[in-house]
Amino acid sequence: MTTQISIFDTTLRDGTQSEGISLSAEDKIKIAQKLDQLGVHYIEGGIPGSNTKDIEFFQRAKQLNLKAKITAFGFTRRKDSVAEHDPNLHRILESGAAAAAIVGKSWDFHVHTALQTSLEENLAMIYDSIRYLKQQGIEAIFDAEHFFDGYKNNPEYALAVLKKTAEAGADWITLCDTNGGTLPGEVHDIVTRVVQEIQSPIGIHTHNDCELAVANSLAAVNAGARQVQGTINGYGERCGNANLCSIIPNLQVKQNYSCISDEQLTLLTGSARYISEIANVHMPVFQPYVGNAAFAHKGGIHVSAIMKDAKTYEHIRPELVGNKQRVLVSELAGQSNVMLKAQELNLDMNSNSEKTKEIIDRIKSLEHHGYQFEGADASLELLLRDAFGQTEEIFTLESFKLFVEKNANQAVVSEAFVKIKVGEEKIYTAAEGNGPVNALDNALRKALVQYYPNIMNMHLADYKVRVIDEKDATAAKVRVLIESANTDHSWSTVGVSPNLIEASWEALVDSIRYALLGQVKQEIAAEPTFGKIGIINH
Amino acid sequence: MTTQISIFDTTLRDGTQSEGISLSAEDKIKIAQKLDQLGVHYIEGGIPGSNTKDIEFFQRAKQLNLKAKITAFGFTRRKDSVAEHDPNLHRILESGAAAAAIVGKSWDFHVHTALQTSLEENLAMIYDSIRYLKQQGIEAIFDAEHFFDGYKNNPEYALAVLKKTAEAGADWITLCDTNGGTLPGEVHDIVTRVVQEIQSPIGIHTHNDCELAVANSLAAVNAGARQVQGTINGYGERCGNANLCSIIPNLQVKQNYSCISDEQLTLLTGSARYISEIANVHMPVFQPYVGNAAFAHKGGIHVSAIMKDAKTYEHIRPELVGNKQRVLVSELAGQSNVMLKAQELNLDMNSNSEKTKEIIDRIKSLEHHGYQFEGADASLELLLRDAFGQTEEIFTLESFKLFVEKNANQAVVSEAFVKIKVGEEKIYTAAEGNGPVNALDNALRKALVQYYPNIMNMHLADYKVRVIDEKDATAAKVRVLIESANTDHSWSTVGVSPNLIEASWEALVDSIRYALLGQVKQEIAAEPTFGKIGIINH
Repeated sequence: MTTQISIFDTTLRDGTQSEGISLSAEDKIKIAQKLDQLGVHYIEGGIPGSNTKDIEFFQRAKQLNLKAKITAFGFTRRKDSVAEHDPNLHRILESGAAAAAIVGKSWDFHVHTALQTSLEENLAMIYDSIRYLKQQGIEAIFDAEHFFDGYKNNPEYALAVLKKTAEAGADWITLCDTNGGTLPGEVHDIVTRVVQEIQSPIGIHTHNDCELAVANSLAAVNAGARQVQGTINGYGERCGNANLCSIIPNLQVKQNYSCISDEQLTLLTGSARYISEIANVHMPVFQPYVGNAAFAHKGGIHVSAIMKDAKTYEHIRPELVGNKQRVLVSELAGQSNVMLKAQELNLDMNSNSEKTKEIIDRIKSLEHHGYQFEGADASLELLLRDAFGQTEEIFTLESFKLFVEKNANQAVVSEAFVKIKVGEEKIYTAAEGNGPVNALDNALRKALVQYYPNIMNMHLADYKVRVIDEKDATAAKVRVLIESANTDHSWSTVGVSPNLIEASWEALVDSIRYALLGQVKQEIAAEPTFGKIGIINH
Repeated sequence: MTTQISIFDTTLRDGTQSEGISLSAEDKIKIAQKLDQLGVHYIEGGIPGSNTKDIEFFQRAKQLNLKAKITAFGFTRRKDSVAEHDPNLHRILESGAAAAAIVGKSWDFHVHTALQTSLEENLAMIYDSIRYLKQQGIEAIFDAEHFFDGYKNNPEYALAVLKKTAEAGADWITLCDTNGGTLPGEVHDIVTRVVQEIQSPIGIHTHNDCELAVANSLAAVNAGARQVQGTINGYGERCGNANLCSIIPNLQVKQNYSCISDEQLTLLTGSARYISEIANVHMPVFQPYVGNAAFAHKGGIHVSAIMKDAKTYEHIRPELVGNKQRVLVSELAGQSNVMLKAQELNLDMNSNSEKTKEIIDRIKSLEHHGYQFEGADASLELLLRDAFGQTEEIFTLESFKLFVEKNANQAVVSEAFVKIKVGEEKIYTAAEGNGPVNALDNALRKALVQYYPNIMNMHLADYKVRVIDEKDATAAKVRVLIESANTDHSWSTVGVSPNLIEASWEALVDSIRYALLGQVKQEIAAEPTFGKIGIINH
């Protein structure tokens, strides 16, 4: 039997069922690109036609030329109808996805209670749907919902569902522990039986309701399953889906399975953190393999043993998954990452120069204070270009003031007053805004537009706030991420402060500095005109 | 073989190795009392004599008359010395603990590398220490550190360690997967062998580095181990220890083992949340069994199935572990979710009444304007109780003003001014804060504390901002989610506005209104005193 395991990522579909996760089409595109670099084999993107975000995602995903197969999720045809006329199956075909994942019932109780149809009609719904998709030339994956509960209740019927699916030509048949209540021993026994009975390749899809999703996925693979469905960081409904960030190294480093290449495995930690940033979800430090504390050593006895031989208290070499050992209480920027970034920008960064040491120290210190550059490329680029003298000072801040007032039953008023110097000239502007950040943005651009008219071509595309230390949320530090865009591309910047407004200002300033990189300041001939300003003052 | 499993809690010892957890003696006493109510059999309290907190804990714990056995942790005697004169063993005996847990080496590599002594001397260190403790009449538990790694490297030596321990009279021998790198199949095979070779009762102690700590504990029990060491919420070094909140229900509800009584099992969720509050660690909503989202349902299809029969999407009845079903009200779901929520609150909501229609219309309209109640249970509850006349007006807003100022190279200043009416009385307060929301929170509480002193017992635990319409981020609407907590539980509220400050204010007000549900206003006799206010104005 092959030891190659196919990795099916459903972060963009089942992962978004997680409480508090809501991804825009742009978020989904970014995550898909990151997943493709990581080397997953299938990327389930959403439900075509269910909402405008998913429609946009499938349209844009086609143009990305990813190696991974973009997969559309959907349901078997409706009861008492015809697959050829099913609008949902049509939307999957129209989406242009390379593969379809179709969910259907395999627990007789669910057929009666939830679907309210006959066991025979359910078999027909599954058979017709898969066969139709195969006739249309698309790869078809069948998700057997509640398979383990179904098998425990009525093994004959659960197996009949799989046989019917195989007969219809499904490329993969995925056994789902939808409620997450099955134990590893049960999974092992049931998958063993399925592999004996069914010729099609088998996949596994588990949930973490018993804190056993990873163990259940391993048990299924050990019993013969060859595809694992899961999500990055285990995002998903209720207690989450099976966490690919733990499953992949468990299979690949601890057992002799191959999932992705060893080089791709070193991208695991970075990918997990990047995706948590995009999803705007705090990543627990204690997360296995990829968490910040996964290889952190605190106790003195442990540390002294570690210094003799890391193997004494580390179960794998952290570098294998792109993570690293932390001994002291210091956040660490991967030096190699920074070097790689510098290389990308054609900055001559030699690993043992004094300047490199200074830059790394500066990044480490910022990270220690709560900055994170994984989701803020433009801020990192500015920092590096600053160090190499490749930036010009656009302006210096003298002060800003912000005023927000609400009277009962009246709209809120936000006003910002910005005093800056551009070269030798002092500029003082005032602007209103829909909110405090908008008011600051308006006032700052109003001050700069006469020198840099292009500044009107960019806009802020997304704004995220995260409390860094949750001990006392309104008194703790916050990290603001701003995404800006013009017609050509988008860029992200970061600001950190105990004060939400100051953190926003910092990210705002970086965003504007980045937009103006390489732009030449216009000299003002006579009186400045403010004709253009109306458009930002809405 | 007995199906009674002994539960050994090490939250107060190994749990405190968790990054960010630091417990005072008072914290430890509170947690020990809670653990005792929950029915764990052993409470490992710390290392006597290692620090003043632990000394105080053991002194005070003696007077609590707990049913659980207070256990002191320590090390085998030093190499080349005598157990009778070992200061560490003496401190254990002096602590008055009912049991001692002694850790020793069972991996030959560690004996050579970390301990730097001979294999024979290591055996003697273990034998002497256990025998001495038994002679002194105390229960003795031996923690065989790195047992699984040791067994894989040198099974004869690892087993020799256990045999020597049994010979010395240890009451329990605990096999530790100290580095957390062992897989469930290995644990099962190795424990099976140990149980064949060793007559003493066997315990298991696992770590979560592969996200397999729970599975490994179950595998050990299934192979014959009869004691499980773990921590509440899985606190512990690196990726944490085995999570008792998942292990206990997995053993007791899913298999036929007994750990604690069924009544005690219903205390599990409350205990987990209480201990997370004392430890001042944010409890992930997605935590299995005891998390806020563990039985939360979002998708419309799931919700309609749940209403037909909860078993369709719930692996156990949440009441068994003291948790409850939550229906996340989102646009996807609709009327049935709201009805279920009302039912949960004992509100008489008839599906075809006029009032029901009004409430549903109101929620739909709010959702249309960007509100999301799936992450804001408390706001939804307030909305429903408002509609049923079950709330009282705490205050009315006259106005708030917020002022933020930054001068170059100076710290930002945030000041808030709040004017409200409580009954007929007008109150005007001013407060500073670390940021704008903190300043508003401080000013509002300052105004209310004289009427509702309890308001000081709650705090804001998390704060999130998301732009709803991402087209133009700083001019678009934002959604603010605030999570608040007191010692008993946590709740979430939502605010939406184009203005970040107004949205934050709205979520803040809901949070406070929810906290004060059912609380009686205190009448102010004479002049209001502001003595208490200092504590929020830091």
